Amino acid sequence: LLDDDHFHDECGVVGIFEHPEASNLAYLGLYALQHRGQEAAGVVSTDGQEFYNHRGMGRVADVFSAKDIKRLKGNRAIGHVRYSTTGDSVLRNTQPLVINYRHGALSLAHNGNLVNARELREELERAGSIFHTDMDTEVILHLAARVDGKDAGERLAAALSQAKGAYSIVALTETRLIGVRDPLGFRPLVLGRLVESGGYVLASETCALDLIGAEFVRDIEAGEMVIISEKGIESRRPFAPVGRRMCVFEYIYFARPDSNLDGINVYNARKRIGHELAKLYPKDADIVVPVPDSGVAAAMGYAEATGIPFELGLIRNHYVGRTFIQPAQSVRDFGVKVKLNAMPSVLKGKRVVLVDDSIVRGTTSAKIVNLVRDAGAREVHFLVSSPPTTGPCHYGINTPDRSHLIAAQHSEEQIRKLINADSLGYLTMDALYRAMGSRETGYCDACFSGDYPIFKEIGAEERQLRLIKEG
Amino acid sequence: LLDDDHFHDECGVVGIFEHPEASNLAYLGLYALQHRGQEAAGVVSTDGQEFYNHRGMGRVADVFSAKDIKRLKGNRAIGHVRYSTTGDSVLRNTQPLVINYRHGALSLAHNGNLVNARELREELERAGSIFHTDMDTEVILHLAARVDGKDAGERLAAALSQAKGAYSIVALTETRLIGVRDPLGFRPLVLGRLVESGGYVLASETCALDLIGAEFVRDIEAGEMVIISEKGIESRRPFAPVGRRMCVFEYIYFARPDSNLDGINVYNARKRIGHELAKLYPKDADIVVPVPDSGVAAAMGYAEATGIPFELGLIRNHYVGRTFIQPAQSVRDFGVKVKLNAMPSVLKGKRVVLVDDSIVRGTTSAKIVNLVRDAGAREVHFLVSSPPTTGPCHYGINTPDRSHLIAAQHSEEQIRKLINADSLGYLTMDALYRAMGSRETGYCDACFSGDYPIFKEIGAEERQLRLIKEG
Amino acid sequence: LLDDDHFHDECGVVGIFEHPEASNLAYLGLYALQHRGQEAAGVVSTDGQEFYNHRGMGRVADVFSAKDIKRLKGNRAIGHVRYSTTGDSVLRNTQPLVINYRHGALSLAHNGNLVNARELREELERAGSIFHTDMDTEVILHLAARVDGKDAGERLAAALSQAKGAYSIVALTETRLIGVRDPLGFRPLVLGRLVESGGYVLASETCALDLIGAEFVRDIEAGEMVIISEKGIESRRPFAPVGRRMCVFEYIYFARPDSNLDGINVYNARKRIGHELAKLYPKDADIVVPVPDSGVAAAMGYAEATGIPFELGLIRNHYVGRTFIQPAQSVRDFGVKVKLNAMPSVLKGKRVVLVDDSIVRGTTSAKIVNLVRDAGAREVHFLVSSPPTTGPCHYGINTPDRSHLIAAQHSEEQIRKLINADSLGYLTMDALYRAMGSRETGYCDACFSGDYPIFKEIGAEERQLRLIKEG
Amino acid sequence: LLDDDHFHDECGVVGIFEHPEASNLAYLGLYALQHRGQEAAGVVSTDGQEFYNHRGMGRVADVFSAKDIKRLKGNRAIGHVRYSTTGDSVLRNTQPLVINYRHGALSLAHNGNLVNARELREELERAGSIFHTDMDTEVILHLAARVDGKDAGERLAAALSQAKGAYSIVALTETRLIGVRDPLGFRPLVLGRLVESGGYVLASETCALDLIGAEFVRDIEAGEMVIISEKGIESRRPFAPVGRRMCVFEYIYFARPDSNLDGINVYNARKRIGHELAKLYPKDADIVVPVPDSGVAAAMGYAEATGIPFELGLIRNHYVGRTFIQPAQSVRDFGVKVKLNAMPSVLKGKRVVLVDDSIVRGTTSAKIVNLVRDAGAREVHFLVSSPPTTGPCHYGINTPDRSHLIAAQHSEEQIRKLINADSLGYLTMDALYRAMGSRETGYCDACFSGDYPIFKEIGAEERQLRLIKEG
Ligand SMILES: Nc1ncnc2c1ncn2[C@@H]1O[C@H](COP(=O)(O)OP(=O)(O)O)[C@@H](O)[C@H]1O
Ligand SMILES: Nc1ncnc2c1ncn2[C@@H]1O[C@H](COP(=O)(O)OP(=O)(O)O)[C@@H](O)[C@H]1O
Ligand SMILES: Nc1ncnc2c1ncn2[C@@H]1O[C@H](COP(=O)(O)OP(=O)(O)O)[C@@H](O)[C@H]1O
Ligand SMILES: Nc1ncnc2c1ncn2[C@@H]1O[C@H](COP(=O)(O)OP(=O)(O)O)[C@@H](O)[C@H]1O
Ligand code: SF4
Ligand code: SF4
Ligand code: SF4
Ligand code: SF4
Ligand SMILES: [Mg+2]
Ligand SMILES: [Mg+2]
Ligand SMILES: [Mg+2]
Ligand SMILES: [Mg+2]
Repeated sequence: LLDDDHFHDECGVVGIFEHPEASNLAYLGLYALQHRGQEAAGVVSTDGQEFYNHRGMGRVADVFSAKDIKRLKGNRAIGHVRYSTTGDSVLRNTQPLVINYRHGALSLAHNGNLVNARELREELERAGSIFHTDMDTEVILHLAARVDGKDAGERLAAALSQAKGAYSIVALTETRLIGVRDPLGFRPLVLGRLVESGGYVLASETCALDLIGAEFVRDIEAGEMVIISEKGIESRRPFAPVGRRMCVFEYIYFARPDSNLDGINVYNARKRIGHELAKLYPKDADIVVPVPDSGVAAAMGYAEATGIPFELGLIRNHYVGRTFIQPAQSVRDFGVKVKLNAMPSVLKGKRVVLVDDSIVRGTTSAKIVNLVRDAGAREVHFLVSSPPTTGPCHYGINTPDRSHLIAAQHSEEQIRKLINADSLGYLTMDALYRAMGSRETGYCDACFSGDYPIFKEIGAEERQLRLIKEG
Repeated sequence: LLDDDHFHDECGVVGIFEHPEASNLAYLGLYALQHRGQEAAGVVSTDGQEFYNHRGMGRVADVFSAKDIKRLKGNRAIGHVRYSTTGDSVLRNTQPLVINYRHGALSLAHNGNLVNARELREELERAGSIFHTDMDTEVILHLAARVDGKDAGERLAAALSQAKGAYSIVALTETRLIGVRDPLGFRPLVLGRLVESGGYVLASETCALDLIGAEFVRDIEAGEMVIISEKGIESRRPFAPVGRRMCVFEYIYFARPDSNLDGINVYNARKRIGHELAKLYPKDADIVVPVPDSGVAAAMGYAEATGIPFELGLIRNHYVGRTFIQPAQSVRDFGVKVKLNAMPSVLKGKRVVLVDDSIVRGTTSAKIVNLVRDAGAREVHFLVSSPPTTGPCHYGINTPDRSHLIAAQHSEEQIRKLINADSLGYLTMDALYRAMGSRETGYCDACFSGDYPIFKEIGAEERQLRLIKEG
Repeated sequence: LLDDDHFHDECGVVGIFEHPEASNLAYLGLYALQHRGQEAAGVVSTDGQEFYNHRGMGRVADVFSAKDIKRLKGNRAIGHVRYSTTGDSVLRNTQPLVINYRHGALSLAHNGNLVNARELREELERAGSIFHTDMDTEVILHLAARVDGKDAGERLAAALSQAKGAYSIVALTETRLIGVRDPLGFRPLVLGRLVESGGYVLASETCALDLIGAEFVRDIEAGEMVIISEKGIESRRPFAPVGRRMCVFEYIYFARPDSNLDGINVYNARKRIGHELAKLYPKDADIVVPVPDSGVAAAMGYAEATGIPFELGLIRNHYVGRTFIQPAQSVRDFGVKVKLNAMPSVLKGKRVVLVDDSIVRGTTSAKIVNLVRDAGAREVHFLVSSPPTTGPCHYGINTPDRSHLIAAQHSEEQIRKLINADSLGYLTMDALYRAMGSRETGYCDACFSGDYPIFKEIGAEERQLRLIKEG
Repeated sequence: LLDDDHFHDECGVVGIFEHPEASNLAYLGLYALQHRGQEAAGVVSTDGQEFYNHRGMGRVADVFSAKDIKRLKGNRAIGHVRYSTTGDSVLRNTQPLVINYRHGALSLAHNGNLVNARELREELERAGSIFHTDMDTEVILHLAARVDGKDAGERLAAALSQAKGAYSIVALTETRLIGVRDPLGFRPLVLGRLVESGGYVLASETCALDLIGAEFVRDIEAGEMVIISEKGIESRRPFAPVGRRMCVFEYIYFARPDSNLDGINVYNARKRIGHELAKLYPKDADIVVPVPDSGVAAAMGYAEATGIPFELGLIRNHYVGRTFIQPAQSVRDFGVKVKLNAMPSVLKGKRVVLVDDSIVRGTTSAKIVNLVRDAGAREVHFLVSSPPTTGPCHYGINTPDRSHLIAAQHSEEQIRKLINADSLGYLTMDALYRAMGSRETGYCDACFSGDYPIFKEIGAEERQLRLIKEG
């Protein structure tokens, strides 16, 4: 696995209502959301009678053939991309799930994480439920099958009322496409319109709307449920209102720069973070070099604000897939070299400001600093476009244990030494919110601040739930 | 699809308890049971902690690689091969299923068919169950998760008490391998012993024991449940006793000739059927020719009893897989030619007694008679080693609608004309049971006699349950 | 590899001239010839302008998809199936080969073996030729490109005049389909007619004609070349006439029983061999049991002649592919059990005459005798439907080294002991030719008699030619 | 196919001498050279005795498994990546080729194009050569097999003396790795050293050395042949000296920015081109936006020189593979949208300087300008970092017919209108060479200037050579 030194988004979702090529559009939406998960992908479609599904391990382009898309009949479809660590990323744990229950069929794709999934699951099992997968999504489906409600929307709302945590969900029934975002609105979800067909699109990010030529309508709000049917769009507010707590890390790293989340363009936000870094750490340096791709926009902002020239001293090989065959007698720093190459002709003799989005375990950062020094840089000043990541995420982001978070275990000076930088500068919380415009809008920043909007159930060891492995 | 002009067995099952290479033995057992189902195969294994599973579409040899077998860790395993019609034979409908429920994990492989599956499913859905597949197996798992019981055996028994129909089941828990045969014992199930490892084997037919070098212990009896654990084997009788009704068609066609089912060797039974045909239809003919492979043993019996020479006038191409690429401008009788070739040097000018196991739609039989005539046969007398198939099977065998059963729609004389034979002779029920030894042992012969041991729920249209399709 | 205890045919060829679905018919012809080679298959087609080719490792059904067949455009095609030992059976060594040379394009498929291939190759290399493969076929192509001749037929004839050994060849040019059989006619080659399209078929065996609905016209004669073009068929005799020496082992084992080779039906020849065995070895036995499939016809002949009942005491699993996953702690006699199962209900207490086609290394025969004894046979008399195989074949059949041929190293009594039989009887040469009708027709029987019609070049170590391996 | 609106590099090559994991390093080298060809990849290795090869269609990561690499034994290896248009990119036309000839085995991988290939081929065919592929490489191998010479180097040199055109070749014999660059040195080739193993590396670009941790030694010079054997490196000058004519388009577009070609760093050269564009076209604009990735460095140079802010207004989806499934009812400008997304939050209301490397057919450029306008740009000034491409390349670059080159058919003003830009500015030849440092070093710029260093044989229609297609 190439990159385990990062927080990783766990999922992206998309939904299409009323388009003759619904599954093809869903597939393209997933294409645009590929950065949110590259381990598995799936689409479920319906013609109002039957449900069709195709899921597989790997990237969207590898999972779907033209023949697969053709078999996914009907005018409505939902799709899902998933990231997860190797061990668990088995076919049975891919989404969207589709089930039959007393009200017909129901399909669901989920981005997020329930903090009380284990508790709910145990309760459901005590009541006689059986589980085919390890996914929270299945818990939600079980709940929806057991509650009452006049329509699928009410049932889904009643089910989710028992769930705590983060969820941006798209759901498909015989007649409806439903989108719902948890009361705190951790993960993004947007609504678009297919002008020609008069249909609708739901997606994790606006970049998915752009690719399929859908018009942006608006963000689904925290705590909102939209129900799209032949009668049009209905908006509901099934949950008790609480303050919005959108994940601030989406802006810093997860989302695509060309997406707008809750009204804020990601690329511009990152550039403003660069401006803030310039104010915090005005360096006496020759060049500003980003760690591509995640460090590019912040580095540009820093260069713009300081006037220090912006240079691409590290070139990224975009053909690198998730795996490669490594020689046994390893080349020094091979793991990072396969992705990044440092240019002596740019770096030699230079005092370099290096900008990356975050430092998680610190191992990759150390190797990158090494590369830059080996290419002849005289000084390396490492600026991080986020505050120190001192805690794990419980809201749908894959994070290492706290014990592996370098910033949870070491002082900034220790980290500087460990990554062999001449200086190290993290973004401050205040600067972060200056860049975001305002703190008041309501963000989650728990992995930086320790201020967790929802607590995880005690002793929840997800691991123990997983008894079944793909052979 | 090569052969839709036959009744088809729906499944074969195997279970291994305590062998260091349990999954490999399960795989080999399925190899030996391949004739019972060639559409899909799967193995679930356990080391007592985790469950591993691998399933796929196609033949056993194609579904499993050495790597797959290696990943199926643990000393216990169950396996399943499945036949089904194309439309429904999707990956999600392959077995064994494995689920988590309040008592841990439970895996199940099932040969048979529940006649009240739909009813049970609707009840379960009303009680809040969700269904991921279209299989009866999932109904049984749901029931097992909802009943009480001191151990998995009791729970499975309680679940099955609500089920009506045919089931020969192998089940796997963290600590036990369970085998159970329905009260009427429609489908076979045998117990064997792995002498060296001291382990046990369950399998649909004895030929599976032979291949893996297991000693035959005994047939599981109708209505019996065996629970194999580290403490040894325990036999239970959880159901009210009713008379045995073993499927007589297993002897005529489904089972492998080298298997012994409930004490009777299949090959010998078929030869005795040939003797009976000789008594019923002593023909003035030059040669006896089987339709290979299913007609071979009965033809040998007929030849033996009549003294008419046995000849292989039809040669079967054993390399034929389930599919082939057919030319658009079709060769005459192509469908049957790809499987069978008629030899003029054997057949020319001869009066031929042709022996096959059954006539279902009649289309294939007509083509075969054609082939034999084209090869120069002067007369073709078609003998069938079963009574006329006048009804469908509800007990785990895939059968065409009654409207497609030639014997349900036509008189014998009409059939004779339709297949263009000079004479046609079916086995009689009495002759059948003389060949079987005794009628009293208790057999199902419903598809011949209309005497259905269990009625199917009214209006049960399995089709309607299937809303989800693999794209 | 399942079976290395046999002589193996190296190839089968087919050619189609003028049919709108030429490649589909070629594919079906290969299907029927699959028994002649299961390691690789290929088809080359032409529309008179371009040549299309598709080749792959494995069985015909696995190598070709409907899409592949569709891409093989044109009204003419040739095809090839190939057997070879694992090490060398790489993609680059599959046929038909297709090349461009000064006269356009030429494609060739070859069944046989040149005994002076190495010599020719060295000469060609000295003259500046380069070799992409290890195949004799490429040697022939090089020769054809260097000789003069008025048409492709003359060039091919001139090339083959330099070659010594066995070859039944089909060749394709822009305008012609050519078939040629070496002067001694070791390997079979037949001509058929596609009645409807008015086209022609060439094939190794008549069973290929039968499957595609082609009428048998005649055998290509030893030393004959036929040239099929829009003008019709032309027959040439480009080589100095020598006596025919058709491989007698084709009748005993290689060919399909339903084929007729040079006028003799294989099944009937095998039955007559059984009659001869009956005369040579009239046993006091209870049953005659064939080792299926190769022993069936001879066993039937033996039973017919002696009146001892013919029984299928060994059942063969026809689903066995070329490979399977073997447990490490091997089941006793596993290798043979995966293919054959012995039935105690047939064999127990019986004095058994076991009939097989040949004994090569003896290891398999020993295991089979074991199986039969373990199933309870009281006596096992092993009859072989060929004389002792005491030498290798140089004419296109894959054979073990002489040092591995049990009959080359041991007396019959020693062999009897080694395979643990109560008695052992080989066919005699005289009996063989009685069964074949006449010795005078001209057969090769070198691997039995040591009478090699053509000598192999001295010191020819084919191995040394092979420098390039597929990675 | 995503991108046919570009000149495309045809190949990249790599060679490894003396490393225990030679094939793994060759594979990694190809990984780094993936941008030079994504249609097919291959590696040939040798242990001095046998040659091993593995080739396949697709990207390096898809063509090679760990098992494949393991099978490619030996301490020496060469590799090749290839770009070509769909129709011809068949497995048989992948490299490296490996053949046997009178001196043993010889393997060759070639980047470039021979202008007299057809002529040579016809001559060779007249002399009796046969051709298995359509590649120039095979012509070279034939020549090498026919000439005299003391060693493989001399033979290869003698062969190449008959060839005209562009070739950067790596060749492998049992004992030597040979690298050779044609007298004009069109394509790059560099030498590196594996410090630890003491081995050597040849590669198309320095970025391949960087990835495998090899030290850059020097560029192979135009007309130089290096022979690497156990005795070390020998440099030969087998060809009559002519002036160097390195392809200038390598700097502008083909090569990776982090590579140094003949001493010049590509990224810096591109930035200097940006500076020149600034001098030529100082625009009154708000932002400079590159068409990523190829326009990035020049745009940065332009921004640097003009002081106009550099902004990423177009975001490129790097997960896009070579193909995707397109909806039938096409989204407007879908083809370019799947690769690029324009950001209104950056572009709205802005006067934009858009920088790309070249305009070939013009269709893509028009769509990109559209995208930028749709995102709200007020003005779009299109700057091209190369002179107008008015002619095809005959030296190894895949180019459309002259009739499809927009600059060959239209005036700049017409092009401006066709792509809907407010202004259009091409780099001038003089400015190009100012950026390159000097014209005197010797470059090919034929596709811009019409000054072809070598003429193509008359009437050479490569197409006609291609008679054989993969089915
Ligand atoms: N098409 C794109 N163009 C530029 N940046 C992108 C694109 N897609 C994703 N990103 C950004 O790239 C970053 C992830 O890439 P990168 O930093 O290169 O990888 P890694 O996760 O290995 O550090 C994220 O910040 C994401 O927002
Ligand atoms: N290995 C075997 N040898 C002989 N018969 C077999 C074997 N395996 C299965 N059979 C028998 O073959 C029959 C099915 O084959 P066959 O009649 O040839 O196919 P079809 O179903 O196409 O008629 C069944 O009666 C089954 O008992
Ligand atoms: N369709 C067929 N039906 C019967 N025999 C066949 C068929 N195809 C090939 N054969 C014969 O089967 C023999 C090879 O099969 P067999 O003896 O079963 O395999 P093995 O080579 O493993 O001994 C040959 O003699 C061949 O003539
Ligand atoms: N890893 C890399 N980083 C940046 N640029 C690269 C990289 N690899 C190749 N390139 C450059 O990218 C350009 C090709 O990419 P691009 O312009 O994005 O594609 P297209 O050929 O579709 O226009 C070339 O100029 C090449 O030099
Ligand atoms: S903990 Fe961090 S990654 Fe998780 S939602 Fe909060 S800000 Fe985002
Ligand atoms: S109905 Fe026929 S096939 Fe079904 S169980 Fe009864 S006898 Fe067997
Ligand atoms: S040596 Fe034997 S196998 Fe070879 S051609 Fe002669 S008879 Fe046939
Ligand atoms: S013609 Fe153009 S692309 Fe070709 S070598 Fe010359 S400069 Fe390069
Ligand atoms: Mg990054
Ligand atoms: Mg049959
Ligand atoms: Mg045999
Ligand atoms: Mg570009």
